[in-house]
Amino acid sequence: MVAFGGGHGLAATLRGLRHCARDVEMDITAIVTVGDDGGSSGRLRAERDALLPPGDLRQALAALAADDPTCKRTASLLQYRFAAMSEGSSAGDELLAGHAVGNLVLLGLMEMLGDPVAALDHAAAMVGARGRVLPMARHAVGIEADVIGADPDRPGEVVTVRGQHAVAVAFGHVEAVRIAPADPPTCPQAVDAVHTADWLIFGPGSWYTSVLPHLLVPGLAAAILASPARRLVTLNLATDNETLGLSVADHLAALQWYLPGIRIDTVLADAKWVGEPEPVHRAAETLGARLVLAPLAVADGSPRHDPESLGVALVPVLGAAR
Amino acid sequence: MVAFGGGHGLAATLRGLRHCARDVEMDITAIVTVGDDGGSSGRLRAERDALLPPGDLRQALAALAADDPTCKRTASLLQYRFAAMSEGSSAGDELLAGHAVGNLVLLGLMEMLGDPVAALDHAAAMVGARGRVLPMARHAVGIEADVIGADPDRPGEVVTVRGQHAVAVAFGHVEAVRIAPADPPTCPQAVDAVHTADWLIFGPGSWYTSVLPHLLVPGLAAAILASPARRLVTLNLATDNETLGLSVADHLAALQWYLPGIRIDTVLADAKWVGEPEPVHRAAETLGARLVLAPLAVADGSPRHDPESLGVALVPVLGAAR
Repeated sequence: MVAFGGGHGLAATLRGLRHCARDVEMDITAIVTVGDDGGSSGRLRAERDALLPPGDLRQALAALAADDPTCKRTASLLQYRFAAMSEGSSAGDELLAGHAVGNLVLLGLMEMLGDPVAALDHAAAMVGARGRVLPMARHAVGIEADVIGADPDRPGEVVTVRGQHAVAVAFGHVEAVRIAPADPPTCPQAVDAVHTADWLIFGPGSWYTSVLPHLLVPGLAAAILASPARRLVTLNLATDNETLGLSVADHLAALQWYLPGIRIDTVLADAKWVGEPEPVHRAAETLGARLVLAPLAVADGSPRHDPESLGVALVPVLGAAR
Repeated sequence: MVAFGGGHGLAATLRGLRHCARDVEMDITAIVTVGDDGGSSGRLRAERDALLPPGDLRQALAALAADDPTCKRTASLLQYRFAAMSEGSSAGDELLAGHAVGNLVLLGLMEMLGDPVAALDHAAAMVGARGRVLPMARHAVGIEADVIGADPDRPGEVVTVRGQHAVAVAFGHVEAVRIAPADPPTCPQAVDAVHTADWLIFGPGSWYTSVLPHLLVPGLAAAILASPARRLVTLNLATDNETLGLSVADHLAALQWYLPGIRIDTVLADAKWVGEPEPVHRAAETLGARLVLAPLAVADGSPRHDPESLGVALVPVLGAAR
């Protein structure tokens, strides 16, 4: 199983796959976006020219951590974020405030070993990861987007927004998203994983900044098109800033827009959050995919996937294909 | 086996004990000074009010790391120090430069768990440590010394030098060394280890700032006096700034000066570096100890203990007593 994404959405998929792995035998590989330029990862990119922004990679590693107490505690340590020591102090005053320990650990491993994949494999061993975490490219990339109405003073005009964080929080309609450089060096281990996968899993996650960027890496896109694997798309529960006004059909169409020729087999959506199912059925059919509706959300009513429900829903989907 | 110290000297002892453990069955506990206020540890104490300065604890953990490739690599990671990114930049410009990854990991664990011993036990599990690392007190302490001639403008005058680093590099003759607070909270697990030990091992290491401070913690000193364990003192190979002009006999006498009533069974010294053995024999005899001379130094002629030679020398000493 190869899951593409970054941040919380990918972490939910990975935790779901681990539930699912109790019933369906599988190897799990996460292929993670490397465009993050906000928060702790952004500061490390700026200060130390980090090979890869570590934040999303760290989240994926924590999601795959083994269940024994030592591995779980190491995963908690990687996720532990240094708090500000005094009220009102900023990152400039306090050097460590805001950094997650795991980001510093991954940075240290990448600097020490000089090879991001060796660094990730070692970090995976530290948490007894039930799978592998790989980057979508061997170097950090920039993400930029042409957004209509991003500048409130110039409504209707196209503005280029640069940086993953800026794109993710921009209001307006995303016309086009790009990565820079346009052809970053691929990670051969990620390409191999795509070629030998049974399933490729896209979403949930921030569509423009976590899900689609993989399709913009030419070497990875070619592998996705060529892979004999089946493909699953898990839809988001709600829209965020970058996808305001985007319908479910638009989400699916975007996959084909950015990777013409991509084949989708199954679309998984939450029965309640998806609303009226008919347009979603039609959008899935347009891609040649079947729609599977299941309860996927957490019980408290917030628009987050519940890893266990996701795992339960994935068993018949992923198990049936083998 | 309980080994007292801090920094490189303690690390050499611990590596020596691990060699020795191939022939003599033993549990190893390191009890580490917590007075460091220089470098990375000093910055973390100042910035984050760290419970304990992590540097010496990290060194002890790395020395006890298991030999398998994953544990060894994790130990290397803990020891990896972020370099400055650009020439001429200072710690103020670069937030991470100069910090060892393990110091940040220990700091994160101590903040996350709130308990320094739980933090150290977890870090020990991360490197598969062949023993336990404990602090000599549950809080960081200050180290200060009255030093004759520390101020070159006032030769012969007593100056109070404050801070472990300042004491360690001060020129002049140390008249008295103290910790502040004078009665820090003891670490109960360290006290227990002293009570149940077969051997207590002091030195090598910076005498005033790494070896003697343990004797200044009242709760630990009482445990050392009361313990039925035998006691070994490993002498330094050469003097450093803080012990300039101090003879071997002075080193041994200092142990009794700071902990009246301490009993010593064996004094271990390098056959070559110790020079004329007769005064050392007599100094050992004064303490009721026997002197063991053996080759302990590295082969390149520098005044550093070779862990393997130390281990070979320790086998008959520690093995005989059981």
